Formats: sequence, C-alpha cells, structure tokens
Amino acid sequence: MPSKKTTSNIHFMDGLLVFIPLTIALYYLKSPALLTFIAAAISIAALSHVIVESTGIIAQRVSNTISALINATFGNAIEFMIAIFSLRQGLIELVKASIIGSIIINVLLLIGLSMLFGGLKYKEQKFNKDSAGVSSTMLIIVVVGLVLPSMFQLVQGRSIPAMSIAVSIVLGVVYILSLFYTLVTHKHLFIVEREVSAGPQSHKWPFATALTALVISVGLASFIADLLVQSINPLISNLGLTQQFIGLVIVAVLTNIPENISAIAFARKNNMTLSLEIGMSSALQIALFVAPILVILSTALTGTTLNLVFSPFALVAVIATAMIANYISADGICHWLEGAQLTAVYILIAIAFYFI
Amino acid sequence: MPSKKTTSNIHFMDGLLVFIPLTIALYYLKSPALLTFIAAAISIAALSHVIVESTGIIAQRVSNTISALINATFGNAIEFMIAIFSLRQGLIELVKASIIGSIIINVLLLIGLSMLFGGLKYKEQKFNKDSAGVSSTMLIIVVVGLVLPSMFQLVQGRSIPAMSIAVSIVLGVVYILSLFYTLVTHKHLFIVEREVSAGPQSHKWPFATALTALVISVGLASFIADLLVQSINPLISNLGLTQQFIGLVIVAVLTNIPENISAIAFARKNNMTLSLEIGMSSALQIALFVAPILVILSTALTGTTLNLVFSPFALVAVIATAMIANYISADGICHWLEGAQLTAVYILIAIAFYFI
Amino acid sequence: MPSKKTTSNIHFMDGLLVFIPLTIALYYLKSPALLTFIAAAISIAALSHVIVESTGIIAQRVSNTISALINATFGNAIEFMIAIFSLRQGLIELVKASIIGSIIINVLLLIGLSMLFGGLKYKEQKFNKDSAGVSSTMLIIVVVGLVLPSMFQLVQGRSIPAMSIAVSIVLGVVYILSLFYTLVTHKHLFIVEREVSAGPQSHKWPFATALTALVISVGLASFIADLLVQSINPLISNLGLTQQFIGLVIVAVLTNIPENISAIAFARKNNMTLSLEIGMSSALQIALFVAPILVILSTALTGTTLNLVFSPFALVAVIATAMIANYISADGICHWLEGAQLTAVYILIAIAFYFI
Repeated sequence: MPSKKTTSNIHFMDGLLVFIPLTIALYYLKSPALLTFIAAAISIAALSHVIVESTGIIAQRVSNTISALINATFGNAIEFMIAIFSLRQGLIELVKASIIGSIIINVLLLIGLSMLFGGLKYKEQKFNKDSAGVSSTMLIIVVVGLVLPSMFQLVQGRSIPAMSIAVSIVLGVVYILSLFYTLVTHKHLFIVEREVSAGPQSHKWPFATALTALVISVGLASFIADLLVQSINPLISNLGLTQQFIGLVIVAVLTNIPENISAIAFARKNNMTLSLEIGMSSALQIALFVAPILVILSTALTGTTLNLVFSPFALVAVIATAMIANYISADGICHWLEGAQLTAVYILIAIAFYFI
Repeated sequence: MPSKKTTSNIHFMDGLLVFIPLTIALYYLKSPALLTFIAAAISIAALSHVIVESTGIIAQRVSNTISALINATFGNAIEFMIAIFSLRQGLIELVKASIIGSIIINVLLLIGLSMLFGGLKYKEQKFNKDSAGVSSTMLIIVVVGLVLPSMFQLVQGRSIPAMSIAVSIVLGVVYILSLFYTLVTHKHLFIVEREVSAGPQSHKWPFATALTALVISVGLASFIADLLVQSINPLISNLGLTQQFIGLVIVAVLTNIPENISAIAFARKNNMTLSLEIGMSSALQIALFVAPILVILSTALTGTTLNLVFSPFALVAVIATAMIANYISADGICHWLEGAQLTAVYILIAIAFYFI
Repeated sequence: MPSKKTTSNIHFMDGLLVFIPLTIALYYLKSPALLTFIAAAISIAALSHVIVESTGIIAQRVSNTISALINATFGNAIEFMIAIFSLRQGLIELVKASIIGSIIINVLLLIGLSMLFGGLKYKEQKFNKDSAGVSSTMLIIVVVGLVLPSMFQLVQGRSIPAMSIAVSIVLGVVYILSLFYTLVTHKHLFIVEREVSAGPQSHKWPFATALTALVISVGLASFIADLLVQSINPLISNLGLTQQFIGLVIVAVLTNIPENISAIAFARKNNMTLSLEIGMSSALQIALFVAPILVILSTALTGTTLNLVFSPFALVAVIATAMIANYISADGICHWLEGAQLTAVYILIAIAFYFI
C-alpha cells in the first residue's frame, strides 16, 4: 500500500518538529555551535515539510496563476530566508554556493537517488522523455545564462556588476514567460500532471488548518533560520569548513529535503516521470526565480550586494550537471546503475568542495 | 496566403536599394561615420538579398555540383568581402569575431526567432529530428575542430600558427567530403529538400536577368562593403565600441539577414524542419568554408595573417551554441517559449560582448 | 564470405609474431632506439592479438562472472604492463596521456573508422541507439568523475593527492556496481550480445591450447613491453617527441589495435551496434578499471605516485570526446561522412598534441 508509506513519512517528518524548542533552548544556553546548527537544521527540514504540505493544500483551492506563484514563493521560502540572513552576516560565498548547490542536488542527487531506489524495486523504469527533454533543454539554456557573468570574469579577469543585474533581469523575464507558457498558452499540458502530483496529500488538512499551519511554520522557520545562520560563523572557525562547502553541500541538502523525499516516493511508485519533473523544475526555479530575485533585491534587503560570479569549480560542477541532465533524459529509460552513477558524481563533487 | 507575405518581403528589401546612392553620397560628403555605416549596412542587407535571390534562380538551371558551389560562394560573398576589406584595415579581431558571431547568430538567433514567431502562430511545431540531429552532430564536431587552436593557446599559453593552417586544411577537406556526400553518395536525401526550398521564388526572374542582377549586385556590394569597413575605424574611436562587439554582433547580424528572414518565413509556414536546416547549414558553411578559406588565403590576399585563435569568451559562446544546437534538435518539437529562451541566450551573449 | 576475411586478419596479425625475436635481437645489439621501438610495437600488437583471442576462448568456458573479470584483466594486460614499466622509468606524463589517449581513440578513432569503412560498404547503417545511449551516458558521467581532480587543479591552482585516491575509489566502486548490473541484476540484456560477439572465433583453438597461448603471450608481452618502454627515453631525447604525444597517440594507438580491428570488422558486417559497444566499453574500462587500479597501486608497485591530474589540453580533448560520443549515439543512424568527421577530429587532436 503506497499510501501507508507516505503517511509514515509524514509522521516521521512531523515528529522532528520537537527539535524547534530544542534549537531555541540550545541557542540561548549558548551550547556549542555545532549542536545548535544540527538542531536548527533538523527543525528547518521539519518546518519546510509542513510548508510544502500546507502550500500544496492551499494551492489546490485557488486559481492556477495564484497557485503557481504561491508554490514558487513558499516552496523556496526557506532558501530565501537562509540567503537573506546569510547575506546580512556577510556570508556572500555561502549564498552563491547554495544557489549552485541547490541546482546540482536537485538534478544529480534527487534524480540519482530516485533512479537508485526506484531501480531497486523495478528492474527498468520508463519516463516521458519528451517532457524531461523540454525541462532539460530549458535547464541548459538557463545555466548558460546563469554562468555568463562568471565565464566573463574567468576569461576576462574582471567582473562587471551590471552584467549580473542584466542577466538576472533576462532570467526573470524568461521565468515570467515560462509562467505565461504554463498557465496560459500551453496550460492543457500541465493540468493532468498537477492533479497527479497533488493526489495523495489532498485530503490531509482542511483549508483553514493549512493556512494557519503555513503562517505559523513560515514565522517559526524565519526565526530558526536566523539561529541557523548565526551558528555558521563559529562552525567555519572551529571545524575549518569553508563557506563554499557549507553552502554547496550542507545548506543545499537541507533546503531541498522535501523535494528529495517526494521524488524518491514517486520513484518507488514507478512514476519516474514525476520524479524527474520535480528535480528539473526545482533546479529551474532556483535559477530563474530565486537567484534573480536575490541578485536584484540583495542590496536593498541586506546591504550586501550579491552578484552572479561563482567560483570556477562551482561553474564546472553546474555546467556538468546541466549536461548530465540532458544525457539522462534523452533515452527515457533508467535503472539502478544509472542512479548509482549520478549519486557517485554528486559524491565526487561534494568531495571536491570539501577540499576547496 | 503565404506567397503574398513572401512577395511583400521581397519588395520591402528591394526598396532598401535606394540606400546605395545615399551611402555613396554620405561617404563623399564626409558625413559622420555612424551615418555612413548605417546607410552602408542597410545597402549591404538589400544587396545581399538580391544576391541570394539571383543565386537561387541561377542555381536551379545548372548541375547540382555547380549549384552547390555557386550557393556556397555567393551566399557568403558579402562575408568574404567585409572580411577581406577588414583584414586590409588590420581589423583582425573584428574578422575573427564575425566568424564566431555568424555561427552563433545562425543557431541561436535565427532558430530562436523562427521558433518564437512560428510558435506564436502554431501551438506546437514539429521538425524532422533526424536531419536536424545529423546537422547538429556535424556542427559540434566542426566546432571542436575550429576551437582547438584557441584551446591550445588558452591552456598552453602560446599559439602555433601552423595549427590554424592544419585545422583549416582538415576542415576544408571535411567540407569537400560533405559536398561529395551531398552531391554524390547520398544525393537522394537532398533532392526533395532542394525543390521545396527553391519553391516560391522560382518564377521571379528569367535566367539572364538573374545573372545580370548577380554581377551588378556583387560589384556594388564590393564597393559598399569597402565604404562600410572604412567607417568602422572612426566608429571604434568615437563610440567606444570594440572590434569584438562590432564583429560578433553588428557585422554578423548584418551579413546574415537574408538567412534569418527566409528561416522565419518558413517557420510561419509551419516548415520548421527547413528553418532549422537553414540555420545549421549556414553555421556549418561559415566553419567549413568561409573560415578555412580566409585563414589559408588571408596572407596572400590582404597581407594580414588570420589565425583561428579566438578570444576566450567567444570560445565559450560558440561551444555553448553548438551544445544548445544539439539539445534543441534532440526532441523534434518546439514552441514559442523555447524560441524565447534561445533568443534570451543570444541577448545575454551580446550583452556580455558589449562589456568586453 | 565474412569468415574468410576474419581468417586472413588473424593470419596477418599472427605473422607479425616474427617481430618478437627481431625486437630482442635489436635490443641486445644496441640498435637505434627508434628501430627497437618500432619492432617492439609491432610485436606488442601481435601479442595483444593472441591474448585477446585466447582470452575470448577461455572466457567462453567459465562462468559469466569469472569471464568478465578475465576479459577486463587480460584485455587490458598490455596497458597495465606498459604503464607499470613506464612509471618505473618515471614517465608519469606518458602514462597519464596514454589513459586519456586510450579513451579518445576508442571513441573517436575506433568508432570513426568503423563508421567510415562500414559506410563505404553500406549507404546507411543503423545501430541500437538505446544501448549506445546507456554506454555514452555512463561515459560522460565517468569522464566527469575522472576529470574532477584536474579541474580542481586547473581552477584552484593546487592539487590534492587525496582527491585522486578518492575519485579512484568511487570509480572503482562504480565499476564493481556495473559488473553487478551486467552479471546479476540485468544479465538477461547481455547474454545474447555475448554469444554474437564470441561467434566467429569460437572454434579456433581448444581450451588447453588457448590457456597455454595466453600464459606464453602474457609472459612474452611483459618482456617486450619492458624493452619498448626502455627505448622511449632515447626517442624523447633524439626525436624531440614529448611524453604526452607518445602516450596519447603512439602508446594509445598501439595498445588498442585489437579493439580497432574487431570493431571495423563488425562494421563491415553491418553490425554497427557491436562496433559502438566495443569502443564505448573499452573506453569505460580504461576509466573505471585501468585508471583507478593504476592510481591506487602505483606507489606500491612502482615507487612512483600516479595521480589523476591531467594536462589541461588532454582534459579538453577527453571532455569533447565524451560529449561527441553522446551526440553520435543519439540518432541511431550513421554514414561514412560522420565517420570521416570523427576521424578528422581525432587527427586534429593528434596534431595539437604533436605541437605541445
């Protein structure tokens, strides 16, 4: 019974909400930063699960356009919060790395684990290579845009702030155009999918409960995210971890746990098409929505200017990721070995960032 | 009625021929370089339209082999003229940039605008992904060859003139082999296509008129191209534009207007297969025919030696373009959003080159 | 009659065994290094043919698992010997270059020549794009892993020995997983193929003869490989060839002659699927089996530590190769021109390495 599995997942994640008071206690008792960080990270994961659940329920009751905007905003709320608090602490490299890391994780790790765990149950899984192809073509085009300022910096030896703004505006326009495509000109392609993906969770909470849960969990998440970010600086000085590793691996994993869990769950139900779609569209939202907004609003909101000049190795990793996304979506078939290979590439990239 | 549209296109372009006397007047009256440049650019666009038209008519009356050579030579006549006059003025970077720019424009902008304008009329357009796949595989192989000397220079820190010559010879041999493939061993694949593409224009002029028009327009184009190139140097010093931007964006757009117009026209007639074919084969001709001839003959014709060492960012842009060409041709389906994305990538690249 | 052609191939290669005593004579008579090198190279080619033949016969009589390990070990025995003797002579760059060169040759030259010679006989050849797609996706994932330490070195400006070890372990685990996939979970996909590929040679020798031939030829190969490597150093000082060129072109061609011959033979029999499979799986074995073992055991076996930091241009070449492998396998159709283009890219890369 697949629904049982889902239920137990929800319970498991909801149970982790007890880490919220623990985090607050640890912070005010001035416990070691590592303990506070871990407790805060678990709380954030639990809260982001509640946010995703309640957003899903609310999104079903409103028009498609509002629903898409709600999903994009609240689906990335934790990313935004951590980014803004980090920028206020001057952790610019961490924020940049978490942008790149989220794209990499949503493609390599999310799809890799889905193919691996799905493949352990089913000998061979098929997915709709047309829809995966459209997403992955979009991803490569978007990544080319996203990396242009870094490439420029890399090969010309100087960076031009206006270029990051210009790229962000163009990417933002592409995002608005893609909403227009999804909601207006080609909405017939997306209606079925939305119903399928909403399926199992739809009867959990009534609307009012969901709305209350959303407001409370966003408020709490904002508070905990602040504590999390405050415990990063001691982490860097004590453990010798770099901003890049924390952003690209730890923060990026943390903020993408709900997507990973639901993608793996769909893979175990042999709906690999949806698993890929979750990974690709999460990666696209980071590049087209989260990154441009952060670049354009960073100075006003945090006093720190964020640009799109990523470290060269992050660049290599994200380009390789976008290319791999295209190769895996080309054949429409997958099995556990392909999942293991994708996971292996992610592990290799994470190892490399550990050494940076 | 699609034929009406085509006719009005022709009239519109032919009307621009009045800019030829204007260009000459502006030049001899020593008007500001920008005015002369703009008038010359419009004249060149109008003349290249006449050259394409008349070449098309002449090519139908001769054998396939002669026709292919005529098309390749006169279809790129303006590119050659501007390149040779520019080399004589020592504008080496401009010529290199216009080679890369022509490849980028024929793939990103031409195909992007075709998909965008075609997609505004048709919800979804299909194209023959096999033929697009063959062209785009050839493009990536050719681009790998073309960029080897630059890669060598980039990673080894020194350039080897003999390598540009060797690469040009190999690419030239590949071009001759591809003519042999098209005209001898696999000509059955190309006969239908040629008739289709020749279709609407076939009854416009009699052969003698076409030949006269060709000779006169080539002569005039050679004269105007000289004036155009002479007005580039003041443009650089007055407007602060770089040779790279002028070559990669302005000259490349200018010399590829006829291809862009006819590709968009075919997209509006729902013949996206032909639009892609025009873009890909124009890009291939630049890499396999124009660039090698310029490298091999530059020293003899202009006293200036052209090599294939492109600027690093031009390299990044052309490699990304060849990769994107492969991704878009893989699925055989397109819609306006994909066109908008391609156009966005082109705009981003043009912005980047403005800042260089 | 295809079997006749195969027979004459075998005879031709077996005849070359007379070069073995010649090599030994040349070496002890202190002939010029170039002569010894050429004679040793021809002997090695002949011996590796015997090793492949006898391994094939032995592999048919044992279980699938043992057979896969025997094939992987003895199929790469000459590579290992030359690598180990070269490391003992301190020729680290040569060994690295031969790893990259083997991957490049097995994809570009082997598949290119197969498509070229197959295409001269058949107008158009089809291959199973699903199986080619799986291999080429695996190749790109593996190459991304393989190049990570070099990329790290290139963009960070320092190399970390632990990273080469970590990457080798991850690649080795992927290799073991892929054996598990081939031999256990998805063995039904590979049984037919194995029978087909074993086909023509199966009745040549009895088991005992094959085993004796294997033992003797491995012993002789080890001896000749030592003489070959000893004649490389004078070659470098006299002819001005670099370690990179010798490794990437000469040694890599030399050690991959049997794979090339059999792939071309299958292409001439219109079995392009198998030709591609031979090329892709040979390239994969180098990356997943030969390279990791050499890195992990180099210090213990030779006193010289091998890492995975390749020269930047080798990196460019191997990434381009993996990408091209994906593009050519996407459409499932090939013809002589595509083969000629692949061969042209290989020639361009070899030219570039000559100039390094």
